[in-house]
Amino acid sequence: MRLALIGVGNVGKAFIKLLAMKKNFLLLNNIELELCLVANSKGAVYSQFGIDCNNLIGELENGQLLENNIEFKKDVDVIDLIKACGIETVILATPTNKNNGEPGITYIKKFLSYGINVVTADKGPVLIDYHGLAEIAKRNKARLGIGCTTGGALPSINGGIIELAGSDVYKIEGVLNGTTNFILKEMEDKIVSYEEALKTAQLLGIAESNPTLDVEGFDTATKILILSNVIMKSNKKIEDISIQGITDITVEKIQKAKEEGKRYKLIGTAEKTGDDVNISVKLEKINFLSDFYNVEGKNKAVKYYSDTLGELTIVGGASGTIPAAASLLRDIINIYRNNNNEWY
Amino acid sequence: MRLALIGVGNVGKAFIKLLAMKKNFLLLNNIELELCLVANSKGAVYSQFGIDCNNLIGELENGQLLENNIEFKKDVDVIDLIKACGIETVILATPTNKNNGEPGITYIKKFLSYGINVVTADKGPVLIDYHGLAEIAKRNKARLGIGCTTGGALPSINGGIIELAGSDVYKIEGVLNGTTNFILKEMEDKIVSYEEALKTAQLLGIAESNPTLDVEGFDTATKILILSNVIMKSNKKIEDISIQGITDITVEKIQKAKEEGKRYKLIGTAEKTGDDVNISVKLEKINFLSDFYNVEGKNKAVKYYSDTLGELTIVGGASGTIPAAASLLRDIINIYRNNNNEWY
Repeated sequence: MRLALIGVGNVGKAFIKLLAMKKNFLLLNNIELELCLVANSKGAVYSQFGIDCNNLIGELENGQLLENNIEFKKDVDVIDLIKACGIETVILATPTNKNNGEPGITYIKKFLSYGINVVTADKGPVLIDYHGLAEIAKRNKARLGIGCTTGGALPSINGGIIELAGSDVYKIEGVLNGTTNFILKEMEDKIVSYEEALKTAQLLGIAESNPTLDVEGFDTATKILILSNVIMKSNKKIEDISIQGITDITVEKIQKAKEEGKRYKLIGTAEKTGDDVNISVKLEKINFLSDFYNVEGKNKAVKYYSDTLGELTIVGGASGTIPAAASLLRDIINIYRNNNNEWY
Repeated sequence: MRLALIGVGNVGKAFIKLLAMKKNFLLLNNIELELCLVANSKGAVYSQFGIDCNNLIGELENGQLLENNIEFKKDVDVIDLIKACGIETVILATPTNKNNGEPGITYIKKFLSYGINVVTADKGPVLIDYHGLAEIAKRNKARLGIGCTTGGALPSINGGIIELAGSDVYKIEGVLNGTTNFILKEMEDKIVSYEEALKTAQLLGIAESNPTLDVEGFDTATKILILSNVIMKSNKKIEDISIQGITDITVEKIQKAKEEGKRYKLIGTAEKTGDDVNISVKLEKINFLSDFYNVEGKNKAVKYYSDTLGELTIVGGASGTIPAAASLLRDIINIYRNNNNEWY
């Protein structure tokens, strides 16, 4: 299967590196993937017979720009090139814009309408118009892989779609944000204030310098919203969600909970109520019987409640750019297997 | 997609019932499944336009035999009939024989060789010759669905194949047997001996009158063996596994563990060691930090360790014949979606 990558930020680079690392593994498993095009906003490197990923990632990790590669073509129309050279699947590692979904959403619509599969880590387009994108994919017999958009390596979306196929999922709960999870654990273990725990998280590169999206619950809200819209087929917007963050929590509350054998977790919940779906993000005090009690540090978890397949809890989700790239590769391989019956 | 069901024992009946229950759900989700043939060892009911599942399950639940249905044809050659009438997927709910895999294995080989997909709950054939069956499926572009063979509703096999695609799984652990899990919990909660807890499990229909397969660890061994052979592509037999059961456990040991905040669990493990895979079943004492600590009663769990996608724990697996049938339906729907790009 011929692949094109758009975007060479951290995840894009990790994807090229992963393909280099996994070359033998893929060969051994009869999964034929060729990365034929890598584009940034200025142009693209293209090779009909597949780019040498090992060589390219060597250059990029040495600080060279994509533009410095000898095969780089400036100012090419990337969409035309991808259409012309028989690319079957595009990996979109474009920067996320949660307000308008650009530039990803325009790319996705174009490629899907040409019958080209798209696998993306970009939450923006999925937040803005999942059902619209799904409709285009369906009409053009293309696949849209978004397994990476709700918790990276954690197979949250795919778990709901594939592993609960045929059941009615009536409730979804998730501990979906690593940063807040880390801060809450730090406050429990080290008996420090919220501010101190946040500072540690920032020093370790876990929290961003502007931590609002994480600590105010917006990141969790985004992820539970996507899960709800994709798996429960709801049609909600971020404004429809009641969102609570962790900024009001005190170390006293956390220590008191600890004495009771309890922990605070920031939990996103989507629940069917008649024909509607209720979505919320709340700081909840849970005890050791909860499936989320041991979901610590950068780990994440999602729990589904279904009619005929019962409850299903999925815990995991290694953090970092290689696991994020690996979750893109997972979607690509599953599309490849579908198309080539390469399951065994 | 035209379906045929072979075997009308408890799981076969539950499958017919489930199709009746899910008729509207499937229509709403654009999943077109028609059960056209239901066979037992004496013959088959066949309808070109689809059997009325609601009617048939009504008859069977009223104590009628399949033979009493007015469409029943005696002594037909089921394999010929399935071939002749355009069945795309066969659901095999035949009784399990772990020594020779019959009658399932002969059916599976035939159907796959005709390019007909097979979805089965029958562990026997998978234990006896998984790689042989996979080879036939591959050669004939058919699918073999075995998601129901290692823990029913728990998506253990599919979790490993689909959700960790592209990663190297180097270790698998699982709490895979509900009966032993129930007995151990009963001994902890009610402070009763192994014998008493077993008796309760038998009274509740959780343990069989001859509980050997469960309590001696063979059922767990079977499941971890299948997971290893399918996901790590090992080629092991039951004789290669070191198996310990739970029959030697005393209530004193369990109560002492409880005081330490620990629990005993029967855990199956498969781990790569160089080019080989080591498989064992052992009673292990774990603490509350283990992902398996809260896997109680009839719940089951599997944990995967992978290179690029990190650790993944899956907990769940509703028990009973409807969830077992629902896990057959899950595999069928995923095959249907593959073939019809009906993912959205």
